[in-house]
Parts: sequence; structure tokens; C-alpha cells
Amino acid sequence: MNEAQTALTADRPTGHLHLGHYVGSLKNRLVLQGKHKCLIMIADVQALSDNFDNPQKVKENIKEVCKDYLAVGLNPDKCTIFVQSRVPELSELTMYYLNLVTLARLERNPTVKAELKQKDWEDSIPMGFLCYPISQAADITAFKATLIPVGEDQLPMIELSNEIVRRFNRLYNSDVLVESEAVLSDTKRLIGIDGKSKASKSLNNAIFLSDSEKNIKEKINNMYTDPNHIKITDPGTVEGNVVFAYLDAFFEDKQELVSLKKQYTKGGLGDSVLKSLLNDVLQALLKPIREKRESILDDDIEKILIDGSRAARNVSQNTLREVKEAIGL
Amino acid sequence: MNEAQTALTADRPTGHLHLGHYVGSLKNRLVLQGKHKCLIMIADVQALSDNFDNPQKVKENIKEVCKDYLAVGLNPDKCTIFVQSRVPELSELTMYYLNLVTLARLERNPTVKAELKQKDWEDSIPMGFLCYPISQAADITAFKATLIPVGEDQLPMIELSNEIVRRFNRLYNSDVLVESEAVLSDTKRLIGIDGKSKASKSLNNAIFLSDSEKNIKEKINNMYTDPNHIKITDPGTVEGNVVFAYLDAFFEDKQELVSLKKQYTKGGLGDSVLKSLLNDVLQALLKPIREKRESILDDDIEKILIDGSRAARNVSQNTLREVKEAIGL
Repeated sequence: MNEAQTALTADRPTGHLHLGHYVGSLKNRLVLQGKHKCLIMIADVQALSDNFDNPQKVKENIKEVCKDYLAVGLNPDKCTIFVQSRVPELSELTMYYLNLVTLARLERNPTVKAELKQKDWEDSIPMGFLCYPISQAADITAFKATLIPVGEDQLPMIELSNEIVRRFNRLYNSDVLVESEAVLSDTKRLIGIDGKSKASKSLNNAIFLSDSEKNIKEKINNMYTDPNHIKITDPGTVEGNVVFAYLDAFFEDKQELVSLKKQYTKGGLGDSVLKSLLNDVLQALLKPIREKRESILDDDIEKILIDGSRAARNVSQNTLREVKEAIGL
Repeated sequence: MNEAQTALTADRPTGHLHLGHYVGSLKNRLVLQGKHKCLIMIADVQALSDNFDNPQKVKENIKEVCKDYLAVGLNPDKCTIFVQSRVPELSELTMYYLNLVTLARLERNPTVKAELKQKDWEDSIPMGFLCYPISQAADITAFKATLIPVGEDQLPMIELSNEIVRRFNRLYNSDVLVESEAVLSDTKRLIGIDGKSKASKSLNNAIFLSDSEKNIKEKINNMYTDPNHIKITDPGTVEGNVVFAYLDAFFEDKQELVSLKKQYTKGGLGDSVLKSLLNDVLQALLKPIREKRESILDDDIEKILIDGSRAARNVSQNTLREVKEAIGL
């Protein structure tokens, strides 16, 4: 990574951001915004592709996600926060890229395949959903982003985007579009408080950055631990124990954590002591975030999004002009 | 049809326009431009969906198609002539409509099915091609067009567009989008000079509006007639005889035509006499068109397209704003 690179990250505005976003992505963006040209997209058009029947949810969460960004310390002076639907050039680029990808290629995409299976649409796949990887390629290339911090499940998307880049440049004898590189996070996915799967808005098993002190405490109290650890003196299991997963992610005294795990495994350490420790850790992390969040005015959010979207348009207008020139239009 | 309606017609700029366009569509537009609000779109984005590997062809023919329009008498003071790629709102609308159509629905579209079969893409259908009916729905609805003059093969497209309109209005509890009505031409498709299929740019069996006097004469001389009509005295067949098909379409003395057909059927009328008559008829029709065409300056064309595209944008921006408001963005 050198100084001249552009990083693009995005969130679908379908709910408030949670601790899973914090460890998996937001913390990393705090580092990126100091080092690289950094664009952060609130992907409302993409969110609509599987929430078209509930646009209200998408609309409301544009503001909420932006608040979460600012609350954790993302700084509009250091990064460009913008709304996808306010950059129409992304739709135009998508139209031109649609010609460069076949139906068979999209249907082979492992991420799309897994998502389709999960969604159970069977025979009624909306075209918008099927096409969203192409729209993502438009997002990436519009800004000539070279660094795309993603989870492993998103690698096929970057691959497809780079295929489009190569195909475009070859077909139109051009060097307008730039390939990007996936930057994999080295943090593990944060598990949900139910211990069943990753923390997720849709499964409602996450601790949100905007949760109240009381909410956080309740969620910690309800965390899945070791169902066989009944008496304090029973030996307990660390593996799959949500409280330990969260301490791994958020408790900074790693030495102390090692000794707590030993003690828990041997027997003699109660869940309530651990949960109380985790509560202290998370309340300390989330209190300033929540307080900053509450201090942000809706008008300020709107101004940030207007300015950011304008800046994003400036860049994408240039790319679109180059793309149309390369095609010859 | 009442006065307040809007008619949308379009051509894909993949070649010069020919007599098939003239009888099938351009003549009708000359009537429409006096009666209705009339939009004429040069569909370059759509043309790219199956010419993405030959954009030069599309680019060059934007100007040529516009010249053909003006040459036949379409008048920019009475109708709006515009270029699809210069109205980005059409791409944005397409993105929102993609969510409202399933893959299965598109694959069932008889026109798409027939075209796919013809193109022989097999397993590599470009998404742009598969999605073009959705893009057409964006074209139609962007201008709230209610009258769509089309051939019978395009009826499934209008049907799909109206489905999108109804689904959008129901889903977003809106009345923003307006259904359109196909207006079928009562003229038969003009056959190609080879007698094998309809006159078509891609089959190179058409007489173009821009053909030279010499070219026209040669094409008429090469027209398929009746292969069994060898001697003048032989009885001839009118059915499937290209010269008669063209006389049907362009010779105005219908009484004389009936008597010529009789004579030909009985025997005693030579192909060369008929071809000479057809040559007179077509030269008389095409000479003023060709002369007008040659008098048009490229700069004038560009100005008409700039003005027309600006006017089209104004309308489509309004619709897009209403659409985004209805969705809630």
C-alpha cells in the first residue's frame, strides 16, 4: 500500500451499525482515513435490491449509518462520505458494464449463489439483485479505487469487478479503468450474542453502537456461554462461548484474558463475573460513541452527505466521461 | 387518441434508415408530429447491448439516423429528437426498475426468447441484452409516453413496461408512472429485395433512404421476382414477388396496379417493365429525401441533438424526481 491509493468501503443502510461492523470494518477505516484517499459509500441503491418492498427502512437508515460513522470517529475532513443514489454516474456505468458480463457468469458467482440460497427466492430472483455485483463494479471503478477492504465472502465480487475492468480495457483499447485489490481484514467475524452465527442486523443478535447502557447490559446478560457450566465450580468451555469471543475482540489486557480462560476451563469462575467484566469493557467503549452520536444534529448529517456526494460525483463524472470516450460515445 | 398524448418512437443507430423504416414507421411519425407531443429517441445505449464490441458503428450512425429523420421531414420544431446516452436519468430509472422484474419473467419474454435464439449466444447472454426490455420501460415511462407505435413483435415489451408501471405504483402507493398503449401499424412489414425476409440493415437487403440513384436502380434490377417467369409471355406470380410488394407499398395508382397484377398473372408483362416503373416511383420518392439529406450540415445535426437531449432530460428529470420521492429516497 502506498500513499497515493484510494480505498472504497460501503455499508447497506438497512439498520444501525453494531459491534460486528466496529471490529470488522469501522476500526480499520479509522486507520485508512489517515493514510489513504478514503471513500465511504452508503449503498442505498444496493440495499433496495433486496428491500425494494421496504424502502422506508433504507431511507431512515441512511442518516443513522452516517451518525454511526461520525460517532466512531470517521471524519468528513479526512474521508468522503456519500450516498450511492446521489451519484447517478454509478447507474450509467452499470448500464455499460451490463454488456460485459454474461448471465452464466453471474449465476456462477459463489457469493450470489449463497445469498440466493439464503433468500429462498427460488424462481423469482429480482434482476436488481442478480445485477448488484455489476453495480458494485461500477462503484469501485467510478472512483478508481484500488484498495477494497472486505470480508472473505466478498472476494468473488472484487474478482468480477477486475474481470470487467480487464474486459473493458481490452475491448475498447483503453486504460481508463483500474483494477482493485481486496484487503482482507485479519480480525475474525464477530459472533452474534446468540452464539449461532455472525452478529447481524437482520438476525437481531447484535449489540448496536447506539444501544443504551441498559440495552447493552441486558444483551450481555443474555449472551450464550457454556450450557454445561452450571455451577461456578464446573469446568467451562471457552470455545463457542460468546462472552469470551467478545472479550477476545474488545478486552485489551490479553494477559489477564489468558488467565481468565485458564481459570474458566478449570472451573471456579462464574459467568456473571465474566459478564460483568465484559459489561465494563463495552460500556467504556460505547459510552463516548453513544454520547457523540446523540450530539450530532440531523442538519449536520445532511450537509455532510450533500458535500460528500458532490465530491464523489465530481470524481465519478470524470470517470464516466473517460468511459464514454473510450466506448466512443 | 386525444391531443394531450405523448408518443415515443426510437431507432437503434446501427445503420442508415431504409424504405422498411419509411413505410413501417417514419411516415407514421410525420403524422404523429403534427398531432401529438412526439419524442424520437436514437437508442445508442440499447444498440450497444448487442454491439458492445463495435461501438464505432453505433457512434457513426447516431448522426446518420438523425439525418434520415430530417430528410424525410421530421421537424425538430414539432418533435424532440434526442440521444439515449445523453439522458442519464434513463439509466437511473432502469436501476430502480431492475428490482421489479424477475429473471424468470425476462426469460419468458417471447421477443427476448426469439432474439436470443437468432443471436445464437447460447450460454453467454450478456446481461445488458437480457435487461434491455427493462431499459425500454425506463425510456417509455421517463416521458410518461402513452402512445408507442410498434410492430407486433414488440408487443411483449409494452406489456412488460406496463407490468413495471403497475408494480411500481402498487408497491410505492403512487400514481407517478403511467401505462402506455401500443399502436400497431397497419402497414405490412416491407420485405427485403432478396424476397427472403423483412428488409433489414443487418441482412443488407434494403434500399436505404440515402442510396444513390444508381444504387437504387441496381437494387431494383436485382430484386427477386418469379423464378418461373422466364419469357414475357409466361404467366407470372404476384405473391412473393418483391417488385409487386414494393409497388404495393409505394405506387399510388392502385387501380393501375390491379391491372398490372392481372396482366402479369396472365402472362405478357415483363419484369423489366415493372422494374422500370418501380424505379420511377422510388427515384421520385427518394430524390428529394436524398437531396435534403445531403444539404444537412453536421453542425446542425449536433445542435438538434443537443437541444433535443436537453429537452428530453428536463422531462425525465422530473419523472426521476417523482420516482425517487415515491420510493422515499
